[in-house]
Amino acid sequence: MAGSFRYRIEQRDIDASQRVRLCAMGDMVLQAAGDDADILGFGVSDLNAGNASWVLSRMAIEMRRLPQRHEEIDIYTLVSDYGRLFTTRNMTVSDGKSVEIGAAVTQWAMIDLATRRPLDLSALSNKGTSLVDREPPVERPRKVGALAECSSERPYEVVYSDIDFNGHVNSMKYLEWMVDSLPTGVAARLGSFRLDINYIHEARLGDRLTICSAGFGSGDGKEGWRFEIRAADSTPICRAEITIAP
Amino acid sequence: MAGSFRYRIEQRDIDASQRVRLCAMGDMVLQAAGDDADILGFGVSDLNAGNASWVLSRMAIEMRRLPQRHEEIDIYTLVSDYGRLFTTRNMTVSDGKSVEIGAAVTQWAMIDLATRRPLDLSALSNKGTSLVDREPPVERPRKVGALAECSSERPYEVVYSDIDFNGHVNSMKYLEWMVDSLPTGVAARLGSFRLDINYIHEARLGDRLTICSAGFGSGDGKEGWRFEIRAADSTPICRAEITIAP
Repeated sequence: MAGSFRYRIEQRDIDASQRVRLCAMGDMVLQAAGDDADILGFGVSDLNAGNASWVLSRMAIEMRRLPQRHEEIDIYTLVSDYGRLFTTRNMTVSDGKSVEIGAAVTQWAMIDLATRRPLDLSALSNKGTSLVDREPPVERPRKVGALAECSSERPYEVVYSDIDFNGHVNSMKYLEWMVDSLPTGVAARLGSFRLDINYIHEARLGDRLTICSAGFGSGDGKEGWRFEIRAADSTPICRAEITIAP
Repeated sequence: MAGSFRYRIEQRDIDASQRVRLCAMGDMVLQAAGDDADILGFGVSDLNAGNASWVLSRMAIEMRRLPQRHEEIDIYTLVSDYGRLFTTRNMTVSDGKSVEIGAAVTQWAMIDLATRRPLDLSALSNKGTSLVDREPPVERPRKVGALAECSSERPYEVVYSDIDFNGHVNSMKYLEWMVDSLPTGVAARLGSFRLDINYIHEARLGDRLTICSAGFGSGDGKEGWRFEIRAADSTPICRAEITIAP
């Protein structure tokens, strides 16, 4: 089974270029995942009743263009596989003319809300009906390596508005802090690109983090930025890479 | 003419108490204003074509309760008057059982995008058909006075994600910074309250601001918090007061 969900790019989602901010785009991708899981009977509300929840482990998004204010997009999503600890959900993003403008692959773990430890997905009873054996629309999320050197280091203290329904930092907030570390003007000019993001540890209210970033050159034909968010004791919290399509 | 708009409280709008964050609630109030203005032919897209835009000058919101995850709310909105420089738009917020859970009064100015100066609203041609002579559902936004003493001072540097389609800081971001300055746990416990917010000067990308806040006691029967956001040269940017209903 697969679901399709329509969202409109609202005023609050866009930047001064009138296009959706990357994090707002990511929010819609995650909302489609949530809306579809709700329909299939294993959404966050269902899971919370059993004191469990979904957490995003890795995500890859490739966009050919970022939609503009008041455009409507359709996000088509399906669950492609279950491992013992991770499940993969694919998405494609189409615009009002049914042109595919992007795609995403997301990997999720289920955690016990009391222990914050991962649960075995074989316990999930109704997963069988939800599976669609389909290749991911883009390459699965890559593992992003440690960032050896930062060209920018920005301190950040986690505040109330960063915390989501699970009581930890909203997955898209890490991405927001990374995007906000880019040199002026870069975020508003993002055109065709790929994002890989890895969630390693949860951050919580009051945590003092450092957002490190560094650009990489076009020597090997690739160009973009790498990011690493670190806890006060230097533990990596989240890593990401944005690669600009040539 | 008046319009009614339905919104759903999504995962990304809520905090750990599972209720909508105040700023996300404010975003929906502003979205209803924008959606209605679009229908009436003087929305931001219409105005931008003439190099003008709406800016929020003052807002009052009174809520009896904050709706929860996946609740649907209806925001009913109308334009109640036009002055030469400001127009007033009223809103009521109802829940799925048609119970009124909140209301808002917003005051808007129109600016020239080139000069950032206010425009004379008498120039707006189609305003006549939009007016509904109706008393505001709650007291109009109050003028919030200068904050003599701060019990908390938080520095903040404006980043990319704070900037809206107008190229200046999103109106709800000032409120977000204020709410994030409250003592831990206060924001997630907001029940019945009134917010008054005054926008005095625009902040821009890279501006270094200070968010001052101070609680006020229940001596006169009122209890709550006052806020003032100041520019690096101490110019007031935005002031607000949250009063807890007794």
